[in-house]
Amino acid sequence: MADGRLPVGTRLPATRTLAADLRVSRGVVTEAYQRLVEDGHVAGRGRGGTVVVAVPVAAAPVRPVAPPSPGDVFARRPGDDVFEAFRAARASIDLSPGVPDLASFPRQAWLRAEREVLATLEPAAFGYGDPRGALPLRQAVAAWLARGRGIRVAPDDVLITAGVSQALGLLAKALLAGGITTVAVEDPGSLRVRQHLANAGLATPPIPVDDDGLRVDLLEAGGAPAVMTTPAHQFPTGVVLGPQRRRRLLRWPGLVIEDDYDAEHRYDRPPVPALRSMLDRVCYAGSVSKLLAPALRVGWLLVPGEHRDAIIAAKRLADLGNAALPQLVLAELMSSGELERQLRFLRRRHVHRRDAMIAALRAHLPGARVHGAAAGLHLTITFDAGFSDVELAARVLAGGVKVQPLSWHCQAEHAPGLVLGYASTTPGDIATAVAAIRRALPA
Amino acid sequence: MADGRLPVGTRLPATRTLAADLRVSRGVVTEAYQRLVEDGHVAGRGRGGTVVVAVPVAAAPVRPVAPPSPGDVFARRPGDDVFEAFRAARASIDLSPGVPDLASFPRQAWLRAEREVLATLEPAAFGYGDPRGALPLRQAVAAWLARGRGIRVAPDDVLITAGVSQALGLLAKALLAGGITTVAVEDPGSLRVRQHLANAGLATPPIPVDDDGLRVDLLEAGGAPAVMTTPAHQFPTGVVLGPQRRRRLLRWPGLVIEDDYDAEHRYDRPPVPALRSMLDRVCYAGSVSKLLAPALRVGWLLVPGEHRDAIIAAKRLADLGNAALPQLVLAELMSSGELERQLRFLRRRHVHRRDAMIAALRAHLPGARVHGAAAGLHLTITFDAGFSDVELAARVLAGGVKVQPLSWHCQAEHAPGLVLGYASTTPGDIATAVAAIRRALPA
Repeated sequence: MADGRLPVGTRLPATRTLAADLRVSRGVVTEAYQRLVEDGHVAGRGRGGTVVVAVPVAAAPVRPVAPPSPGDVFARRPGDDVFEAFRAARASIDLSPGVPDLASFPRQAWLRAEREVLATLEPAAFGYGDPRGALPLRQAVAAWLARGRGIRVAPDDVLITAGVSQALGLLAKALLAGGITTVAVEDPGSLRVRQHLANAGLATPPIPVDDDGLRVDLLEAGGAPAVMTTPAHQFPTGVVLGPQRRRRLLRWPGLVIEDDYDAEHRYDRPPVPALRSMLDRVCYAGSVSKLLAPALRVGWLLVPGEHRDAIIAAKRLADLGNAALPQLVLAELMSSGELERQLRFLRRRHVHRRDAMIAALRAHLPGARVHGAAAGLHLTITFDAGFSDVELAARVLAGGVKVQPLSWHCQAEHAPGLVLGYASTTPGDIATAVAAIRRALPA
Repeated sequence: MADGRLPVGTRLPATRTLAADLRVSRGVVTEAYQRLVEDGHVAGRGRGGTVVVAVPVAAAPVRPVAPPSPGDVFARRPGDDVFEAFRAARASIDLSPGVPDLASFPRQAWLRAEREVLATLEPAAFGYGDPRGALPLRQAVAAWLARGRGIRVAPDDVLITAGVSQALGLLAKALLAGGITTVAVEDPGSLRVRQHLANAGLATPPIPVDDDGLRVDLLEAGGAPAVMTTPAHQFPTGVVLGPQRRRRLLRWPGLVIEDDYDAEHRYDRPPVPALRSMLDRVCYAGSVSKLLAPALRVGWLLVPGEHRDAIIAAKRLADLGNAALPQLVLAELMSSGELERQLRFLRRRHVHRRDAMIAALRAHLPGARVHGAAAGLHLTITFDAGFSDVELAARVLAGGVKVQPLSWHCQAEHAPGLVLGYASTTPGDIATAVAAIRRALPA
């Protein structure tokens, strides 16, 4: 039927006949005919026999798509799909920032935790759930934030989201409903975050970042009602918001949205407490994207009480709440201490790779300034020269290495630079990649 | 430190002293101090010793919340959180519609498939992914829809979503961007679907449903530019859209959105092909919520070419794409035939429960009319009398049984009725529940 040899209207052989032809028992043929009837492809017509009534179709084939060339990826101002094009581009070594060592994902621990979860789960847990997230995960996240980030929050005030990206979208919705149409952002600052806020309908005026972090004085002067900030480890510069700036920001009457995206990763400096640990009216977003894997799409959002119902309603409307199983597995990994162990393991591995990158930069690119190496999963280099870092990144990609130009993450003019993720790359590949960057530099 | 006995400024004992006090090796104490330093709770002050600098906080406790009473759940017009209140209400037997037998979730098969996926996954798959969904799942869904629903679609044209709820939200966004502000809905029709569309900013005028399904003549007369419909098994009445109505709807120039929510579950009638199998410009939404479990939050959406880019952009903005692991596990279950086996198993179980419910209705409620019993996971009963089905459902809940009043799902006046899910309830409980309904009926 599928290949057209038995068109609609064809009468199938009697089960007895076909069974004899194929030398199988008649029961096998009867069962096969029965399934075809159930699927609606044939119908029994009594004395008229069994007749083909609908021809099954096959899925249309996958259309092969060529990966984008370096010229395609970097040809224009980065659009909304820039990170997909960047990801799809071919390269031997990938220094994209924002991921931990992906090869270290604790597959065995994940599977063990999932087995435990499945062994004891109530059937009702497979039904529709709480849009705020599964209670065991909200409890585990509350404990994690208390222990690691100094944040005291009740599990009922934790909203589980599909990563920080979704958290920003939900928040944007609540803010817009409350009449807030502008969220100031750091400059330099994450392009992806800026795109998300802008696509959600918010204006995103830039506030400059210097060596002490966000220029809170300029935030005050600018008059925006809200600001998105990365105080513990600014993206992409890596600076920490200075103590005076912190105090000033906490006194600022606007709404502070804290993106605590990679606060757990620090090497040569004491931890910086979250702003949210000082002030309950800070919106706080975090995720497991930098702790375990972006592909898990699990994050959390804390909002001040007056936005709470709007945020829950937005999450309900978005997807009725995160999927249950991964939440419960993650809760198990958090409460058993497995995630803490994984983090300690990652810290050792990441600091080693960070050191390898700094050594390679000193050897190959002594003229580059290195920023933000004390923490996180990436560092940023800038050059004291006037050239296009987008063109540099395109040449580096043509040489087989994927790096993001700093200017993607800048609204105002800025020294040319590159954002270099090191967490998911071996020291050998890091050295090779930095050498490739040197070869791609303008003479 | 946590309980306040060592406030900030306290000097900890020397490691040697504490080790001797506790009769453990000094290395243990040194390691413990090191972790406290890393976590920022103490700091080494050289000759000043080790000093407490920040007191760890504990998560705030869970506030116990009493489950809502029957009066609370049914007191008012159903609000956006009605299904959460309904779910949170206590009952011995739950006849909520819309779930398959949750106790049959194939836990072992899921775990086996996950082990296989994790054994071979590239590290890069733990990073950020394609917002359209993982290619193996898009391929498996395309094959599933071809085989079971007669739909020919390329994997690149399948968008994986967090269930039909998210699909509706994404679609609403694309439609609003394209100037469509009204989507007509079936009446009776799913309250949840109507709430989702309305919350997304769409008007949802009702189009009556009769024994032949959607009144396409009234749709034409109403002038709405789009309609949301459940042609294979109308929710909640269970009627099938008649052949003449189908043809007329396919000729209608507006946009048809087909919610194929439980098309795989049918017992006494041949399958009804999807409208989308006849016409490419139908938007089509489906999910695994009725096949496996709503808690998986995985569905799919097919849209005509002109809405494709807008839908992908909406999904990217929503959450950057579904989580990878559950998608790959599901793809494995679909392509290995495991999901097909599960569906056959469920059909046998569900038809048995459906029969048990009909028998109980005949015995206890001979005056009730039964609708839509040939397929699906629920049936609907109506009464030829004038009373409030909301009050009836409240009395039934007070008697320990959870049922939804038909009027929740109606915009226009309708005979009182109840929507009774049977798929996740044992035959014994079904009989008990129907007896409880009879006791709750007005005298």
